[in-house]
Amino acid sequence: TAAAPALAADGPSVRWRLTSSFPKSLDALWGAAPQLAKRVSELTGGKFEIRPFAAGEIVPGLQVLDAVQRGTVECGHTAGYYYVGKDATFAFEAGLPFGLTARQQNAWLYHGGGLQMTRDFLKEYNVINFPGGNTGTQMGGWWRKEVKNLNDLKGLKVRIPGFGGKIMAALGAVPQTIAGGDIYPALEKGTIDAAEWVGPYDDEKLGFQKVAKFYYYPGFWEPGPTLSFYINLDAWNKLPKSYQAALEVAAAEVNVTMTAEYDAKNPAALNRLIQSGAQLRIYPRDILDAAYKEAEKLYADESKNNARFKKIFTSWNRFRNDQNNWFRVAENSMASYIPRSK
Amino acid sequence: TAAAPALAADGPSVRWRLTSSFPKSLDALWGAAPQLAKRVSELTGGKFEIRPFAAGEIVPGLQVLDAVQRGTVECGHTAGYYYVGKDATFAFEAGLPFGLTARQQNAWLYHGGGLQMTRDFLKEYNVINFPGGNTGTQMGGWWRKEVKNLNDLKGLKVRIPGFGGKIMAALGAVPQTIAGGDIYPALEKGTIDAAEWVGPYDDEKLGFQKVAKFYYYPGFWEPGPTLSFYINLDAWNKLPKSYQAALEVAAAEVNVTMTAEYDAKNPAALNRLIQSGAQLRIYPRDILDAAYKEAEKLYADESKNNARFKKIFTSWNRFRNDQNNWFRVAENSMASYIPRSK
Repeated sequence: TAAAPALAADGPSVRWRLTSSFPKSLDALWGAAPQLAKRVSELTGGKFEIRPFAAGEIVPGLQVLDAVQRGTVECGHTAGYYYVGKDATFAFEAGLPFGLTARQQNAWLYHGGGLQMTRDFLKEYNVINFPGGNTGTQMGGWWRKEVKNLNDLKGLKVRIPGFGGKIMAALGAVPQTIAGGDIYPALEKGTIDAAEWVGPYDDEKLGFQKVAKFYYYPGFWEPGPTLSFYINLDAWNKLPKSYQAALEVAAAEVNVTMTAEYDAKNPAALNRLIQSGAQLRIYPRDILDAAYKEAEKLYADESKNNARFKKIFTSWNRFRNDQNNWFRVAENSMASYIPRSK
Repeated sequence: TAAAPALAADGPSVRWRLTSSFPKSLDALWGAAPQLAKRVSELTGGKFEIRPFAAGEIVPGLQVLDAVQRGTVECGHTAGYYYVGKDATFAFEAGLPFGLTARQQNAWLYHGGGLQMTRDFLKEYNVINFPGGNTGTQMGGWWRKEVKNLNDLKGLKVRIPGFGGKIMAALGAVPQTIAGGDIYPALEKGTIDAAEWVGPYDDEKLGFQKVAKFYYYPGFWEPGPTLSFYINLDAWNKLPKSYQAALEVAAAEVNVTMTAEYDAKNPAALNRLIQSGAQLRIYPRDILDAAYKEAEKLYADESKNNARFKKIFTSWNRFRNDQNNWFRVAENSMASYIPRSK
């Protein structure tokens, strides 16, 4: 006979800790953790309690993977691409330069085999992942001077981590890795020439427009980065099925509402930034084209040296091309329609 | 002292019926109902069971609102704009011509006050609504002949319901209301000249490309229609809090995964349609501009005569303008970038 399904009230009292990659000041990113915790508690009648901790409270923000893997905490909220130093394959879950938009990330993860492929990879780290938010296409950062063409990038010091930094280096700039709180003084003193952060709502808090007024777009290295909940596999496997279902569904809710929150809050933040001096600039076409070529080169090189990367890239790249061919038709032609009468 | 939270296993056994607006053949739309039911059952250890019924099994597909309002069933899955005949205000929840995209619908509903405003309105119908899926921008339908400019529309019979139909009428076409199963023979015989349906994945099943090969985009009357779960308010109010939470979170999951499913499945369907003879065409600029003007006129007229409509429109319209100003910056400039090297 089949076992009766586990009932929340029959299940064990479970107390977990969640460590976030984000400080509470980045409230939209940080907020994913308490939102998940609250929902899981409601769904289990308070039996399954997850206590969220901000970056640095238990471990530093970029050590979420390690903390979850080792079981220091049972779960975390982070972005896969923070761990490309361990293996570039981590990037797929979050997103790659000129990769998938927020909609396309969800399509790939939920219905394009992406979640299964990234889970197969993360199993080696004793982790199971759940999509948990997306900022949408990020902005291209704050520049002290205009960059009117590819030559203007030469020798400029740009705060930009990960794959984006590698691309900037290939274009002649000098990528820098600087923590959030140190960016403003570095831009102010001119120690660096530019810095990327997130988008209007988060950037506004750091006041970059006062010291680097040219606000470029798009952030071609982050077309739609997915945040992730990482859960220690041993802890996951011990959960009753109904607690697993609660976690999974609560993560999906966070995934859709975080993007909604950014989309709702970015427009007013952008207006305020412009009011206080930010000047919008689109990246020149030659920079975008050169960056695109360098991105493709990076992926080809990585695929040569990394079988795990190659396996996912091959599938992901086919999916990306199909997505772009379709989105160009209905979705983007609608989105880019600007009525003449306005 | 505070009451203890309701536990699923302590809660009552609840058996609900859900009536869908969709036939099982439209599997992505229909699938929302069984997906919700399965998740709610898992989350409540099988205590809260929702049995989904396809369009016509209990009531016809366009009578979901009435069935939920009267309590014939406790809940339904439908699209608000099916009920604009009762009140045009129903359209906001689903979407309006030249309105919000899928991302923007979520932003408005979850974080722009939209859900609260549409709930205030739906309360009069004894219903509470939850966003439950989105197809993304739909296609602009199948035409037997090319329409190269606004004049080509004059007198053509076009199967298109709702606001879209009103706009087509204002442009000189003759809108028709025909059920899904009757469209193909009407197009084949030439009784009608064109018909809109959904997008590649759903359209493919009806084989329109065999009888009307010009496949136009974008479906400017449906930039990102949201489907909805409608729940009878009396039934809702009787639920334990944890069952309410289960329904709410399961709906949010459906909301994000349906769009992911359409986005994942549309590209291959579009390719197959093109292989079997469909010819893609973008709507001529003069048609889009004239349609945009007529849409704005419709909204102004409706606002004059309908205080409920006007109240939401005023807020929605401001939100829409802000959204478009922001999406044009990062998101759309990224999405519309097509590398020169390809």
